[in-house]
Amino acid sequence: MPLICINDFQSVSAEGKRQWQQQETGSMIIRSLTEEECVAVLDRNRLGRLACARDGEPYLATIHYVHAQGSLYAFSLPGRKIDFMRANPRVSMLIEEKDEKGWRSVVVNGRFEELPNEIGHKKQREQAWQLLSQHENWWLPGGLKPVLPVTTKQPHLFFRIAVEEMSGRLADREAE
Amino acid sequence: MPLICINDFQSVSAEGKRQWQQQETGSMIIRSLTEEECVAVLDRNRLGRLACARDGEPYLATIHYVHAQGSLYAFSLPGRKIDFMRANPRVSMLIEEKDEKGWRSVVVNGRFEELPNEIGHKKQREQAWQLLSQHENWWLPGGLKPVLPVTTKQPHLFFRIAVEEMSGRLADREAE
Repeated sequence: MPLICINDFQSVSAEGKRQWQQQETGSMIIRSLTEEECVAVLDRNRLGRLACARDGEPYLATIHYVHAQGSLYAFSLPGRKIDFMRANPRVSMLIEEKDEKGWRSVVVNGRFEELPNEIGHKKQREQAWQLLSQHENWWLPGGLKPVLPVTTKQPHLFFRIAVEEMSGRLADREAE
Repeated sequence: MPLICINDFQSVSAEGKRQWQQQETGSMIIRSLTEEECVAVLDRNRLGRLACARDGEPYLATIHYVHAQGSLYAFSLPGRKIDFMRANPRVSMLIEEKDEKGWRSVVVNGRFEELPNEIGHKKQREQAWQLLSQHENWWLPGGLKPVLPVTTKQPHLFFRIAVEEMSGRLADREAE
């Protein structure tokens, strides 16, 4: 018998869960991730999807980030997502990973904070830049290859998403 | 000399574009997709990210869809994203694809429409279900493996995102 463990799915209603339990689910194990496991997913990955909203209009984009000290750090050119987040700092991030066994996904709800160069974020900025620069084409979702090294003249904004809430789930093939 | 063609990037400001043109971009060609190319991306893919928002709170989720007749058709369990879209039908979808040469991404802005089983969407529903069912584990982002065949008793809601606006871009390695 496969072990089936479901709890706290964001998108599954009580009725959905009841129905799940009545049916054949094959050999997948699905469960929520612990906070520690969520953090590990954030740490291992650099690519995420960011959703923001202004005046009822949602917007989403793929961004690269670095997770450190309870925040996701990222760079972006000025543009639509920055305009949206300045108007409404509430954002949601989705980070997913998949391997031969199955997948994990983490949803982060958090708050946008711009980190201007002038007020002492130089070290964080350089660390984040250095980590992100190791990924070929990490700049692509932003649409512009950045000039290296980072200077105050280049147009990328530096910001972080302060993590306020986090949840995740995992679907793994059952161990034989 | 690499061909560089940039226009109409959603997230690149005029200043960003100007700076782009001043710098070395290596061997990537970046340009906007035509409407025809955007449609081809929607047709080829089944996986997308959906963003919605309620009372200033954004939410995003991975969903599977089928593109037909100017809409993206999908199933979902009742839950948070359905609640959000019922409250505010404006949504944004991001569809991305990547191959050895580079990637393409399309952003769709559209409107959520629920398609209850009772009012004559049976054929669309069955077609969409059949197309989506060919993908192993397509139900995973929804968190619940559906019962086949589709019956009015099973809890999945059927809906579509009517495409209102669409834009896309491509980054390809330059042909040698």
